[in-house]
Amino acid sequence: MKLSEIAAHIGVSISADTKITAINTLKDASETELTFLDNPKYAAELQHTKAAAVILSEANAALLPKGVIALITPEPYLKLALATKLFAKPLFEAGAPEHISDSAQIMPNTYVGKGAKIGANSIVMSGAYVGDYANIGDNTILYPNSVVYRDCIVGNSCIIHAGAVIGSDGFGFAHTKTGEHVKIYQNGIVVVEDDVEIGANTTIDRAVFGITRIKRGTKIDNLVQIGHNCEIGEYSIIVSQTGIAGSSTLGRNVVMGGQSATAGHLSIGAFATIAARGGVTKSIEGGKTYSGFPLMEHKEWLRLQAKISKLKG
Amino acid sequence: MKLSEIAAHIGVSISADTKITAINTLKDASETELTFLDNPKYAAELQHTKAAAVILSEANAALLPKGVIALITPEPYLKLALATKLFAKPLFEAGAPEHISDSAQIMPNTYVGKGAKIGANSIVMSGAYVGDYANIGDNTILYPNSVVYRDCIVGNSCIIHAGAVIGSDGFGFAHTKTGEHVKIYQNGIVVVEDDVEIGANTTIDRAVFGITRIKRGTKIDNLVQIGHNCEIGEYSIIVSQTGIAGSSTLGRNVVMGGQSATAGHLSIGAFATIAARGGVTKSIEGGKTYSGFPLMEHKEWLRLQAKISKLKG
Amino acid sequence: MKLSEIAAHIGVSISADTKITAINTLKDASETELTFLDNPKYAAELQHTKAAAVILSEANAALLPKGVIALITPEPYLKLALATKLFAKPLFEAGAPEHISDSAQIMPNTYVGKGAKIGANSIVMSGAYVGDYANIGDNTILYPNSVVYRDCIVGNSCIIHAGAVIGSDGFGFAHTKTGEHVKIYQNGIVVVEDDVEIGANTTIDRAVFGITRIKRGTKIDNLVQIGHNCEIGEYSIIVSQTGIAGSSTLGRNVVMGGQSATAGHLSIGAFATIAARGGVTKSIEGGKTYSGFPLMEHKEWLRLQAKISKLKG
Repeated sequence: MKLSEIAAHIGVSISADTKITAINTLKDASETELTFLDNPKYAAELQHTKAAAVILSEANAALLPKGVIALITPEPYLKLALATKLFAKPLFEAGAPEHISDSAQIMPNTYVGKGAKIGANSIVMSGAYVGDYANIGDNTILYPNSVVYRDCIVGNSCIIHAGAVIGSDGFGFAHTKTGEHVKIYQNGIVVVEDDVEIGANTTIDRAVFGITRIKRGTKIDNLVQIGHNCEIGEYSIIVSQTGIAGSSTLGRNVVMGGQSATAGHLSIGAFATIAARGGVTKSIEGGKTYSGFPLMEHKEWLRLQAKISKLKG
Repeated sequence: MKLSEIAAHIGVSISADTKITAINTLKDASETELTFLDNPKYAAELQHTKAAAVILSEANAALLPKGVIALITPEPYLKLALATKLFAKPLFEAGAPEHISDSAQIMPNTYVGKGAKIGANSIVMSGAYVGDYANIGDNTILYPNSVVYRDCIVGNSCIIHAGAVIGSDGFGFAHTKTGEHVKIYQNGIVVVEDDVEIGANTTIDRAVFGITRIKRGTKIDNLVQIGHNCEIGEYSIIVSQTGIAGSSTLGRNVVMGGQSATAGHLSIGAFATIAARGGVTKSIEGGKTYSGFPLMEHKEWLRLQAKISKLKG
Repeated sequence: MKLSEIAAHIGVSISADTKITAINTLKDASETELTFLDNPKYAAELQHTKAAAVILSEANAALLPKGVIALITPEPYLKLALATKLFAKPLFEAGAPEHISDSAQIMPNTYVGKGAKIGANSIVMSGAYVGDYANIGDNTILYPNSVVYRDCIVGNSCIIHAGAVIGSDGFGFAHTKTGEHVKIYQNGIVVVEDDVEIGANTTIDRAVFGITRIKRGTKIDNLVQIGHNCEIGEYSIIVSQTGIAGSSTLGRNVVMGGQSATAGHLSIGAFATIAARGGVTKSIEGGKTYSGFPLMEHKEWLRLQAKISKLKG
């Protein structure tokens, strides 16, 4: 799409005919991509961007490297949201799967979309949905009524329980001055690596750009929520009703107890354990056990509860 | 249905042949409707009722306006529950949709029930269910395996993600003296107004009578529960795993953080923000930020956490 | 299956040809079953086992009754996990339902598996799934896209709302020394007794061995999680977003408030009420009301909150 067309759609005045292939983050955008700067915290990254063009405020435009086109607006995030719609893919396209292995079993009442692949010995049970260009590996089970949205990837030897949803839209909106919410179309994907089990009615959101990734050997219980752009490390254990907010990064072998949660944009070190109901609000180092909300080390939490208990008098 | 038939069904002795068209609340019941009084708090409303008949205790019967028939029982709520069953609609009826727009796309493995409507450019994806007499507006997407129960209304330009359920029964029961639960049939509906997005596997219960309403422009994340008879104001944001208990009213632009909750029968003022995990137990005014359980203003909560933190000492 | 084959599969050296029909707990295993001892807490039960063979450590082997075969390993739980896979049933088999009552209604896009039964007047709505050998009683409703996994039993006059999942795998894994998780195949079932209502998108896991049981007259709200091997007493009320961890036992008429939870392997006495958000971490007696996390009696919690509130000062 021509940059001038995008600019016209979002109401910014630019005449450049540069071809834009996608929208991406400031850090990851390539020479044919459009990006944006909203949070001044990331202004220093501007000088390193490889993007073709950047949506940003006038004050920051001066920081752009030569040759990078500025789309200047007082509301960069809102304009970004409007632009993402232009790159949203159709929900489904007419056409046949690219390849369903002869040894795969596809039950009735299922949908396997255009360009989708189903690997050897995999089973797509009744009511399951595999969106266009999704890729299901070998020896994987999609239980009844599970849903894999388009373009998402599920590895080998995975078990996806009934009603689980992989690839639903991340929860991202820009806000107008009058309090309306403008959808940021979520054009990324989910990658579920090998040997992952995902519980019934669990939901894993696709990335806004890039990938929400569940690494090899991780086991996720029922009714868990994993937000967009999270990365869950290898061999992690996520117990039921836990919520992992967007852009959280968990190291390998992290354990999240039942009904625990994280705020977004933080990291949890490898081999950390969060006790049931623990609420992680900032990045924490691995190898320790944590409890409570606000979160603290578990031994500290025990001490605190003993003190609080005395208040009862 | 004749009032005498209802009375016989619930074991109250009345011979009137008055025709009853529905059951409704004391406040809203019209001249052809049956209502009830259980909670003495509402006894003063009896004098204003327009209902044809009221199920109530002997003590309160004297408060009824002339011409309103009393169905006297020591257990009004239990008798109400028994009566609601008589007005429950069939789960589905034989027959074709009333109107599916030529520009709507209906994928295979879907169900669009008798009298249902699907508006222009709307998409009903594989496995989605649109119950009888449900009404889906224009430009709306029902993702795979989403479910709209009968009679419910979804507006224009809505996005309903996979596995979301709109119109399931509210959780309402009367209790017998021996501890059994008698279902109060939920004969109301859900109305989702325009430009609403509802996350994957979120559940929104239909009203017991009347309407559970999600107002224009509200965005709801995954795995959220909204109880019967709630009203969610315009442009609200409800983050994942939040629970809104029955008959709660939220003003416009309320933000509910992740895993937050409300008790039932309360109101939250416009532009209030409830932080993640906040538990709202009574009505609160708008325009402020709240945290904690029990709930308090966020700045107060920060102060309290600092004090509690010192206890660890 | 011959014990020698099982032993070879899990890498334990035994040549006995004893026929093993199933794996079961130490307490429940019969003369043709294999069992295990991992937690030394249960070592005293060894002397009473009726099992054909036991997977256990060398130190405990001496406690076995005569005639019971020892499969000796330093990692009994891991070996058990490997053995469970040998007894996992196929996900679905070719063949017709055993009996669908003439008065039952089966909507299109449903699946009723081999050997399954649907009782009189029951309704299987569009997209619902009834696995092989599952048994649905009379007058029961399976709402759209609800799922009953194979072998599970749902009684008479039950209401299963849209998207509810009955019989998904319990969340059970053994762990290798290098931090990988080995699935313990969940070969038990779920039994839902008569007059139970289960809310939309609620999940109930099948037992690892034996039965997860929801007793007569219990009402469960939306988005509730019930772990494997739980027993929920008669006429209990489980409000939305509650999580009941594995092997919990609730007495009759227990009330679990919204977003409450239990840890696993505990019991709650009859007529106990857990307030919203209450977190039960050890067994508690019935007939009382509890709150908080850590849990305490509600009146104590109120007193404590008053004290804490003063800290705000």
